[in-house]
Amino acid sequence: MISTERKRARDLGLVIGSLPPGPQNAISDVPGVRVGHATLIQGDGPLIPGKGPVRTGVTAILPHDENLYTQPVVGTVHVINGFGKAVGLAQLLELGRIETPILLTSTLNVGLVEDAVTQYMVEQNPQAGITGPTPNAVVAECHDGYLNDAQGRHVRKPHVYAAIQSASPTVEEGCVGAGTGLMAFGYKSGIGTASRILPKTLGAFVIGCLAIPNFGRRGDLILNGIPSSQIFDSLNTQTPDPTLRPEGGSIVVVLATNAPLTSRQLLRLARRAVIGIGRTGSVVSHGSGDFVIAFSTAFRDSTTNEELLVQRMQIRESKLTAFFGAVVEVTEEAILNGLTMAVPMIGRDNHEVDAVPSERIARFFER
Amino acid sequence: MISTERKRARDLGLVIGSLPPGPQNAISDVPGVRVGHATLIQGDGPLIPGKGPVRTGVTAILPHDENLYTQPVVGTVHVINGFGKAVGLAQLLELGRIETPILLTSTLNVGLVEDAVTQYMVEQNPQAGITGPTPNAVVAECHDGYLNDAQGRHVRKPHVYAAIQSASPTVEEGCVGAGTGLMAFGYKSGIGTASRILPKTLGAFVIGCLAIPNFGRRGDLILNGIPSSQIFDSLNTQTPDPTLRPEGGSIVVVLATNAPLTSRQLLRLARRAVIGIGRTGSVVSHGSGDFVIAFSTAFRDSTTNEELLVQRMQIRESKLTAFFGAVVEVTEEAILNGLTMAVPMIGRDNHEVDAVPSERIARFFER
Amino acid sequence: MISTERKRARDLGLVIGSLPPGPQNAISDVPGVRVGHATLIQGDGPLIPGKGPVRTGVTAILPHDENLYTQPVVGTVHVINGFGKAVGLAQLLELGRIETPILLTSTLNVGLVEDAVTQYMVEQNPQAGITGPTPNAVVAECHDGYLNDAQGRHVRKPHVYAAIQSASPTVEEGCVGAGTGLMAFGYKSGIGTASRILPKTLGAFVIGCLAIPNFGRRGDLILNGIPSSQIFDSLNTQTPDPTLRPEGGSIVVVLATNAPLTSRQLLRLARRAVIGIGRTGSVVSHGSGDFVIAFSTAFRDSTTNEELLVQRMQIRESKLTAFFGAVVEVTEEAILNGLTMAVPMIGRDNHEVDAVPSERIARFFER
Amino acid sequence: MISTERKRARDLGLVIGSLPPGPQNAISDVPGVRVGHATLIQGDGPLIPGKGPVRTGVTAILPHDENLYTQPVVGTVHVINGFGKAVGLAQLLELGRIETPILLTSTLNVGLVEDAVTQYMVEQNPQAGITGPTPNAVVAECHDGYLNDAQGRHVRKPHVYAAIQSASPTVEEGCVGAGTGLMAFGYKSGIGTASRILPKTLGAFVIGCLAIPNFGRRGDLILNGIPSSQIFDSLNTQTPDPTLRPEGGSIVVVLATNAPLTSRQLLRLARRAVIGIGRTGSVVSHGSGDFVIAFSTAFRDSTTNEELLVQRMQIRESKLTAFFGAVVEVTEEAILNGLTMAVPMIGRDNHEVDAVPSERIARFFER
Repeated sequence: MISTERKRARDLGLVIGSLPPGPQNAISDVPGVRVGHATLIQGDGPLIPGKGPVRTGVTAILPHDENLYTQPVVGTVHVINGFGKAVGLAQLLELGRIETPILLTSTLNVGLVEDAVTQYMVEQNPQAGITGPTPNAVVAECHDGYLNDAQGRHVRKPHVYAAIQSASPTVEEGCVGAGTGLMAFGYKSGIGTASRILPKTLGAFVIGCLAIPNFGRRGDLILNGIPSSQIFDSLNTQTPDPTLRPEGGSIVVVLATNAPLTSRQLLRLARRAVIGIGRTGSVVSHGSGDFVIAFSTAFRDSTTNEELLVQRMQIRESKLTAFFGAVVEVTEEAILNGLTMAVPMIGRDNHEVDAVPSERIARFFER
Repeated sequence: MISTERKRARDLGLVIGSLPPGPQNAISDVPGVRVGHATLIQGDGPLIPGKGPVRTGVTAILPHDENLYTQPVVGTVHVINGFGKAVGLAQLLELGRIETPILLTSTLNVGLVEDAVTQYMVEQNPQAGITGPTPNAVVAECHDGYLNDAQGRHVRKPHVYAAIQSASPTVEEGCVGAGTGLMAFGYKSGIGTASRILPKTLGAFVIGCLAIPNFGRRGDLILNGIPSSQIFDSLNTQTPDPTLRPEGGSIVVVLATNAPLTSRQLLRLARRAVIGIGRTGSVVSHGSGDFVIAFSTAFRDSTTNEELLVQRMQIRESKLTAFFGAVVEVTEEAILNGLTMAVPMIGRDNHEVDAVPSERIARFFER
Repeated sequence: MISTERKRARDLGLVIGSLPPGPQNAISDVPGVRVGHATLIQGDGPLIPGKGPVRTGVTAILPHDENLYTQPVVGTVHVINGFGKAVGLAQLLELGRIETPILLTSTLNVGLVEDAVTQYMVEQNPQAGITGPTPNAVVAECHDGYLNDAQGRHVRKPHVYAAIQSASPTVEEGCVGAGTGLMAFGYKSGIGTASRILPKTLGAFVIGCLAIPNFGRRGDLILNGIPSSQIFDSLNTQTPDPTLRPEGGSIVVVLATNAPLTSRQLLRLARRAVIGIGRTGSVVSHGSGDFVIAFSTAFRDSTTNEELLVQRMQIRESKLTAFFGAVVEVTEEAILNGLTMAVPMIGRDNHEVDAVPSERIARFFER
Repeated sequence: MISTERKRARDLGLVIGSLPPGPQNAISDVPGVRVGHATLIQGDGPLIPGKGPVRTGVTAILPHDENLYTQPVVGTVHVINGFGKAVGLAQLLELGRIETPILLTSTLNVGLVEDAVTQYMVEQNPQAGITGPTPNAVVAECHDGYLNDAQGRHVRKPHVYAAIQSASPTVEEGCVGAGTGLMAFGYKSGIGTASRILPKTLGAFVIGCLAIPNFGRRGDLILNGIPSSQIFDSLNTQTPDPTLRPEGGSIVVVLATNAPLTSRQLLRLARRAVIGIGRTGSVVSHGSGDFVIAFSTAFRDSTTNEELLVQRMQIRESKLTAFFGAVVEVTEEAILNGLTMAVPMIGRDNHEVDAVPSERIARFFER
């Protein structure tokens, strides 16, 4: 398995915040949530646009095991900086619901992935777009063009189906799925996840996060408050950064919870993720497409039920601050896991991206 | 040509508002703006999902003749009701610029059309996504599933290229391009366009509109203030409406102008289009995806220029009311043209949709 | 009583839409909702800024009879065009709740009215701002400076208290309260209200509206689809309009319902009011501050209850279109009532504003 | 002078970020920007609501020396969390301009302060609200009720005038003006300010900030990445926090720059301030009213000029990342200055709030 040699941030002494993580410290600690990846790594050497080398993939996040078209969940999205190509956002905001798996992939690949999800939903729901409404696919992205033949848009229908169909409660991190070709702060990054359990007085609800960090300049990285320049040696922070992207990078954060929240309340949670991002060293650069998608599994709408009134529970508004704190913690930790679980990679044009020096992190934080 | 037997609203005595239209009364009265369609009509009889019958298409709107990736124009989008799948909106709002042709198509087809536009931009700009930023395709849609095999997503790359490459200043209306399978108020509808020229004291600037109306229940239609029930006979308004869609329909409005406006000012214009829509009888139903995309051709950004400062003209804020009035007029008239220029159509499962009875309109308004 | 000689729009033959109005055709058809006015008319002749003449007032809308600070209701606000000085909007949007009476008044007077409401809430809730949170007053406004000494800010604490304390289910219309000094389309306007009852299959819920129209140029007025130029004689539409305001006017619309709706759903309702406004002839001019405040009386939060979970009913999303239609109807009719119930007025500098010619309306629509 | 005994963060070794501050490290490093305070400290002992003790004030920020009503500047506002009572925001967002001094004060006092600014503008512009448009006052607030008789709303017209008229390029920090009664992280806080100078290649433009931090629980404070629990002794972080507010606190951030930016660009800057806030330990709690007001002094609109076209420079979009970094730095540093420059205070009911232990900060960071 690609990431077994690597350790998670917490295992390196990077303990973020004060709330306890769930059993897996993963988005799948929210009961029912599953994650699947399809990873595409093919070819080496010079870039031949449309051919390769290929360093990309797709990740699927499923809020529950049933048919999301007939049983959507409450959801929302917050755009921190809209330099990104995510699709499905307008309807998500208008109706406050997620009605397909959430897919993450390579920027130029969002069209084909949207089309594949649409096909998947239509096969599962033959009435969709004939007698029933059209499904609203939610697809977000990061650009992996430094390592990957991005123009090739190599993620196709079989990969999307594989990601959805292989989804499991065990979340693989690092250079898999949509994380395959990413980098952050000049290091290789990838899929990162984390979770927190709220106190029993707050229902012991779970807040989970999955992030794909793909932003930041070498030297800007902050590890639990400490600038990485104080932790890494100067080679790591002062040599020119070959990965430097003129327009910055991006991050997609997916938040999940089993707490009963309205879409307005979920939006309040989603708007706190930027603090977790900022604490890792980001200032959300001009070219960064930073999107936060959030959902609650507490209730499932029924699109076939025709009764006039729907009954719902929600968290009392004045109790939300602890949820906000959990969001900040899981976001920061998921980003760090995305870094510490990634492995070095050589991609198109022999571009080489190192992993973050985990042993130095461990040495510093184990003090 | 499919729509030659039909007349435009104005030629039926439906004169909307008080400002004069441009020479073509079309979005292409804004100098440089061109429109192209690809129309797909194939097969008859029972629906075989994925096969046909096909009644769909794609429409391309080009703000200018040059490379939009290197010379984007100022733009914005206003979401009246977000029950729709338009893509590219977050970046359009963040940066306030249009950097690809604008494409309109069938709802479930947005992914493939986005992919085709991306391919088109990449061919035109080999650096895109390698050394340059990724292009942000803007694609909006209406659902044509009553007449069309929507699940088939029949619009493919060649159709998108054909629409872009055939774009011309002569705008064909009615059942062509993205308008092929649409219907509004229980009648067949299609592409409609209109324009207005502002007074010389306001620079004689042009406001143009292209709309794809696909909303409304039979009986709700209002023609220049007069409920259609007072104009049409009871057969038209009181028989059951076979086209009734439980979740309503949609409309996409594209506004163009040569007036120098910032994206904030364009947004103010875009937010007035709903009044033109409302005056035709819409209350913007729950299931209606109503989107307004607006752009100005007055300036072209240069993404290759690296100078720190950019110089721009803009309209003095206090002068905008007349522009707002023009937006309301062109939107209402473009919708009506979309109706009066459409022809009857028989589609999937032999669903039959009549054209609006133009002769009765003419008889009423020629009084 | 100032407006007894005048008739409501419906009594002049102006029947808007198709849904039935409630027993009073007023916002107070929503059970528990009450409205109170304080009207200030003093002095004549030349304007002495700070002294008079005074033609202004304040209107209070109370969602229920109890303490709104401890039992707030669900609410929201939609800004159609933000050229206005309404206060309390950010917190209303964030929390989705109304926790004080809603006050309407003269533009420059919002500060003093906010202060008076704050004092009122503090007297009712001695803990406010000491051990409890600070109350969020919602105050909206229209500019009455053509008839009134607006700089004088004549509405003071006793007037605000009088408006709140005199609130009753019988809503007085026309030139009272915040409507005292307003004008629309070159005619005197004032308070207008209307209501609709939804079908029993939709719960027979009530949608109520109170509006203060203060916008539009003479000649732009549309009466149930018919341009007023076809109804009034040329004197009314072609003579110069002395009331013409370079920056346009404003309108505040308050929507109430007893249907259980979330704040997101209420926002969807609020966003339809612009269609009702547009159908009376507005294009929402540059200088028009057009705000829609909406609330539901179905549930009362309890700010003293500390339980973690709150139970709520809400309307099934797919049922909302009929509610949107009701919003469009009540908004249009409330505006027309604001016009037809207003009486002529002479104000500062002997500015004279006529009432809309009701007898001509009646003659035309009684055909 | 009240704060002479205290040191600024930078003088304690707390050096935030990497960009150089301006000569004064204050918002007034933006040429033309001035700040004035009126401070109200009266009475001691038990709270008598409406009487005292008084620990409050008002702060005025003037973008330039001339008449802002006739020469407004470009501005905007970003609401991080809308649990606050700021006024004037809707028009600021719609038009993108600041047309009065910006005032900061005590929460319940916003109405009276708005009224005072309105009076001030009307005296300066006798035509306002008669032949000219009404001025849009921008007033933001924090709640100082733990130390101050907030219900008393002691800030009156003379204090507002004094703050405006005493405005100077020398910005006093700490317990003055709107900062008088504030506290953050369980310590006394107050006015804080900071600035950064961009590199010459970015025009050497200045980004300035003035903040009034009033949020956070003891123990949450982070100093340049280091949790304060590692710096202060346990007495400071583990004893119960008497200042704990159930609903959290608030912060207002005012950003100024001389860089030519559109309101859309300013909004992009304003949206980064939350990262600076988050880095000091905030998660933006439920009850926190966190508002960011931003303006550019580069251009002055002329409201009397009637020419159709306005010419403007703006920063090329792709250059903005460095501006975002500066915003994060000045926000974090202004907050820390607000803490380190504040002095201990005893207020209503003998509530006592300590200053942050500066000597420990210095000892830690001087290592």
